[in-house]
Amino acid sequence: MKVAIVMGSDSDYPVVEKGLKILKEFGVEAEVRVISAHRTPDKAVEFGKGAEKEGFEVIIAAAGKAAHLGGVLAAVTILPVIGLPIKSSTLDGLDSLLSIVQMPKGIPVATVAIDGGENAALLAIQILSVKHNSLKTKLVEYRTKMAEEVEEKDRTLRKKLSN
Amino acid sequence: MKVAIVMGSDSDYPVVEKGLKILKEFGVEAEVRVISAHRTPDKAVEFGKGAEKEGFEVIIAAAGKAAHLGGVLAAVTILPVIGLPIKSSTLDGLDSLLSIVQMPKGIPVATVAIDGGENAALLAIQILSVKHNSLKTKLVEYRTKMAEEVEEKDRTLRKKLSN
Amino acid sequence: MKVAIVMGSDSDYPVVEKGLKILKEFGVEAEVRVISAHRTPDKAVEFGKGAEKEGFEVIIAAAGKAAHLGGVLAAVTILPVIGLPIKSSTLDGLDSLLSIVQMPKGIPVATVAIDGGENAALLAIQILSVKHNSLKTKLVEYRTKMAEEVEEKDRTLRKKLSN
Amino acid sequence: MKVAIVMGSDSDYPVVEKGLKILKEFGVEAEVRVISAHRTPDKAVEFGKGAEKEGFEVIIAAAGKAAHLGGVLAAVTILPVIGLPIKSSTLDGLDSLLSIVQMPKGIPVATVAIDGGENAALLAIQILSVKHNSLKTKLVEYRTKMAEEVEEKDRTLRKKLSN
Amino acid sequence: MKVAIVMGSDSDYPVVEKGLKILKEFGVEAEVRVISAHRTPDKAVEFGKGAEKEGFEVIIAAAGKAAHLGGVLAAVTILPVIGLPIKSSTLDGLDSLLSIVQMPKGIPVATVAIDGGENAALLAIQILSVKHNSLKTKLVEYRTKMAEEVEEKDRTLRKKLSN
Amino acid sequence: MKVAIVMGSDSDYPVVEKGLKILKEFGVEAEVRVISAHRTPDKAVEFGKGAEKEGFEVIIAAAGKAAHLGGVLAAVTILPVIGLPIKSSTLDGLDSLLSIVQMPKGIPVATVAIDGGENAALLAIQILSVKHNSLKTKLVEYRTKMAEEVEEKDRTLRKKLSN
Amino acid sequence: MKVAIVMGSDSDYPVVEKGLKILKEFGVEAEVRVISAHRTPDKAVEFGKGAEKEGFEVIIAAAGKAAHLGGVLAAVTILPVIGLPIKSSTLDGLDSLLSIVQMPKGIPVATVAIDGGENAALLAIQILSVKHNSLKTKLVEYRTKMAEEVEEKDRTLRKKLSN
Amino acid sequence: MKVAIVMGSDSDYPVVEKGLKILKEFGVEAEVRVISAHRTPDKAVEFGKGAEKEGFEVIIAAAGKAAHLGGVLAAVTILPVIGLPIKSSTLDGLDSLLSIVQMPKGIPVATVAIDGGENAALLAIQILSVKHNSLKTKLVEYRTKMAEEVEEKDRTLRKKLSN
Repeated sequence: MKVAIVMGSDSDYPVVEKGLKILKEFGVEAEVRVISAHRTPDKAVEFGKGAEKEGFEVIIAAAGKAAHLGGVLAAVTILPVIGLPIKSSTLDGLDSLLSIVQMPKGIPVATVAIDGGENAALLAIQILSVKHNSLKTKLVEYRTKMAEEVEEKDRTLRKKLSN
Repeated sequence: MKVAIVMGSDSDYPVVEKGLKILKEFGVEAEVRVISAHRTPDKAVEFGKGAEKEGFEVIIAAAGKAAHLGGVLAAVTILPVIGLPIKSSTLDGLDSLLSIVQMPKGIPVATVAIDGGENAALLAIQILSVKHNSLKTKLVEYRTKMAEEVEEKDRTLRKKLSN
Repeated sequence: MKVAIVMGSDSDYPVVEKGLKILKEFGVEAEVRVISAHRTPDKAVEFGKGAEKEGFEVIIAAAGKAAHLGGVLAAVTILPVIGLPIKSSTLDGLDSLLSIVQMPKGIPVATVAIDGGENAALLAIQILSVKHNSLKTKLVEYRTKMAEEVEEKDRTLRKKLSN
Repeated sequence: MKVAIVMGSDSDYPVVEKGLKILKEFGVEAEVRVISAHRTPDKAVEFGKGAEKEGFEVIIAAAGKAAHLGGVLAAVTILPVIGLPIKSSTLDGLDSLLSIVQMPKGIPVATVAIDGGENAALLAIQILSVKHNSLKTKLVEYRTKMAEEVEEKDRTLRKKLSN
Repeated sequence: MKVAIVMGSDSDYPVVEKGLKILKEFGVEAEVRVISAHRTPDKAVEFGKGAEKEGFEVIIAAAGKAAHLGGVLAAVTILPVIGLPIKSSTLDGLDSLLSIVQMPKGIPVATVAIDGGENAALLAIQILSVKHNSLKTKLVEYRTKMAEEVEEKDRTLRKKLSN
Repeated sequence: MKVAIVMGSDSDYPVVEKGLKILKEFGVEAEVRVISAHRTPDKAVEFGKGAEKEGFEVIIAAAGKAAHLGGVLAAVTILPVIGLPIKSSTLDGLDSLLSIVQMPKGIPVATVAIDGGENAALLAIQILSVKHNSLKTKLVEYRTKMAEEVEEKDRTLRKKLSN
Repeated sequence: MKVAIVMGSDSDYPVVEKGLKILKEFGVEAEVRVISAHRTPDKAVEFGKGAEKEGFEVIIAAAGKAAHLGGVLAAVTILPVIGLPIKSSTLDGLDSLLSIVQMPKGIPVATVAIDGGENAALLAIQILSVKHNSLKTKLVEYRTKMAEEVEEKDRTLRKKLSN
Repeated sequence: MKVAIVMGSDSDYPVVEKGLKILKEFGVEAEVRVISAHRTPDKAVEFGKGAEKEGFEVIIAAAGKAAHLGGVLAAVTILPVIGLPIKSSTLDGLDSLLSIVQMPKGIPVATVAIDGGENAALLAIQILSVKHNSLKTKLVEYRTKMAEEVEEKDRTLRKKLSN
């Protein structure tokens, strides 16, 4: 089980890192790359074309502004590509979101929330779990833990407020 | 290989139909359902919870306006859920898009373009292909055909303009 | 007179707290809960379904991003549900607002301003006052006090500027 | 049980009418008025101030563009005011929505979806039902009927597709 | 020559103050008031109705969020009303702008830029100058001074860069 | 009393015409011109610089898209310039609105609603009325007539609904 | 003098055609191609890389939705690339505009207005005129003709209105 | 080879400076000017009209808010004008972007990303390189260097993560 996380700029790493941590928790191998669709276009195409042979089963593409990375990779591979829009210094991430999600007919990019590093990873894991049953149990456990955390916060707050 | 396509209203069918046709072309079984997260909430939860046992491997959720269907299903299944935002009579689909894509940490919905029925289907197929190798060949063929169609249009236009 | 304030995340509490304070001022009992439509979906449905029997007369649902909490609760109760959109780190609250207010036909959510914790509480009180006459007097007093505060600020500023 | 529906212009009637029909179905008396916050400001204030004495328990205010009607009425009555944003010829209803929902601290307007005439009425009924128990049964029936309609559409579509 | 500057909240004063300073520079008398269209609606109507008799010739109305103040005043006076949208903590001022500028047919509000305190004052002065010729000379001088400041900055920068 | 209405393209005339009709009703002389800030820049500057001498007291500038006409005229005259944003085939008038209203410090443009031809004219008349008292009576009459029309519509609708 | 006009879909041709006509008027050779950044990615890269050798001096890239074509071409050529955003069935062209104009540091795309086929061509001609002096005279003539057309419309309207 | 960089306010300099540095790296002479389309309109027109004679081959116009500078210059010169939208304190640069890019038919402004000082410079250089072959080699070198920097960051990150 191997996921590629490609980001257009190393400044996207703080968002990507949150997802990377989750992939590790799930025992999914992840390779993180800095490849720019615009500054290293050949590398991007080469990486996309070779991704399947390299053993990757899902690609996460993180990019900001006119975020073409997801689309450029998706155009040259049939692996599922998850688009992770990064908020930059202007327009609050709307540009990244629209550049990624509004893909024309034929080449989809599975888009998650702006700066949603965790969800990009979880989506990758859910996709992998279609094939890899072992991940299903882990996903159920993860969700149970998440639910328990929310419930713990609920109890804590109620206790605090009742005092 | 079985995909569920759930839509919040039967008025979403014209967009959904485009995806349904593609799924059939790929030999992927698809069950289309009208289930509203708001008007039939129990049904939605029941469907989501039972989807995996019913043999579905991916769910496509189409909805407009405050489009909660994808999120409601995703919250009760670990199957990958693809969100298909539908443009309604106001706000040009922006409301549907944001209601689907901006999912909070923990429960991702794989969002495609507004009214992107075809891409929702193709994404489902790409996800399935991680497990089902037979789909990979078909995806490559589909892309080749798409490329040829673009090239044919290119030739036609150039011929027309050179006259 | 009992109001439920449900929030999707405990990080929403600073906004919710402003409303809680007002409810107390009016002598309206309020129970604050952390329940996530996505991370604790069963709890959300259970809470919504049982709210009326628990003696709640109005529910305030605070959530950010793809804010489905209000809609999920409103779908399983006939109590009035007030939606309180929370501004998160991207898109300036527009995503929360549209996810809450643009509810499809059949299941309304009474939406107030982004981060409008006070107004969510005041709306709850106004709704309760339809039944509970005692609140009407208090609402009139509250408004008189508010008006006096504005007038006091007016006097203070004029004095300051005339010097 | 009496609801006032005030609209800023008689051109808003097609949207309002949908709500009026629902109020009648529920046996709630409704008075429809054309009162402009800007063209008949005295009338608006007079109506708002007298609404409670006239026996109204909820007010629905429908308006488009810089839609101040809801706020103007809410400022002079403590009755719950439901704001119904109307889409006009420019900006797709975003102007009406923001002008209604973003009310400053102190005076809430319970906002529903753009052009959401039905939901404005249903919200009014839900608010009334806090006091009038008879409406609760009717609301439950209404929701059951709505659910059945969705389920009927589900069956119809599935039958159609299975042929 | 007397201008009224009404603001919905004293928190708008920092923006208003910039305009006040300019009015003083031009020798135009200005009265600054804190009057809320929603919290002190009677005061707002009273002020608007009496403004002409009080000797005001132009009104500046500064407000944020669902900014109804300009419209409420404009509805009860035939004096020109200048709307000054104030940026609040969410939506970056877009809500204030649309609530002020999108006035329906019949009652215009002369809108300036978000947080444009200076321009509200200058517009008031330009309007007054239609009647009061003395202001024309001052406006020409003001513009000359502005131009000189820009030219001075141009020279300073060029000098700095040529070194 | 003379108003100039300048429009960037003759395709703006249908919106402008509504204002022109109102100016005539008020007995205000109006000269309509087609002058483009971009295609006839010298004419625009020449017109703006000469407007005061030509006897104009207010200028209305109607333009769409990147609507610079109002700003270009306002920069070369001290007459009040009213900006009338025109909706074009894309972006629903938001581009015109922002290009006109967001004028930088120093040169205001008094902006009215998108496609608000009537309000541009009424604002011009209100500005003129500061000087020309005769217009004040007419404005009061106009408002009375408007109010009566709304009230007539109110009576008509109520009669219709009571049958 | 040779310009390439590449469009992502032949449905973009009506917008492109307007620019093509202008290029012909100026005697600039233009080759129109249908090449999709997503459906024919290799062709896009190949075309971009070979464009300079093919004798092109400027490239116009027209595309809608998540419009990556301009960026993909710009990444593999140092020729100036003009981005022409096409309005599609949702979001009014905002998605295309942001996907094209918000290019990250290093690879610019010279963006013109949504559906601005004529301006894309004129910008190409202005760029070419830096090198090809003969185009300068033609550009001056073109502008003179444009100005005369506006002036003619001005005269026509004034004549019509004075009757 | 000479480029003019005109900015509407000296507060735009931090963005402009990034471009200036790049122009110097490429050995392109650049003259930076502070000229406001609104506060120094005559200067703007004079500069635009004389730019070609002064030896400029491309103009970069940086401005914020209702950013007319690019359009005003483009209207009076046939030199290519690059529009650089500057983010100001409200609306996150959307106003500047739309005011610059949405130029009406006839007068294009080549728009780059909001605050994209570097890309404005690189676009100017690419335009100049159509004529000046020496720049082509430098552009290729610049891109190679950029690619190497991305690749270096890729290696650094991978090394760091593999430890």
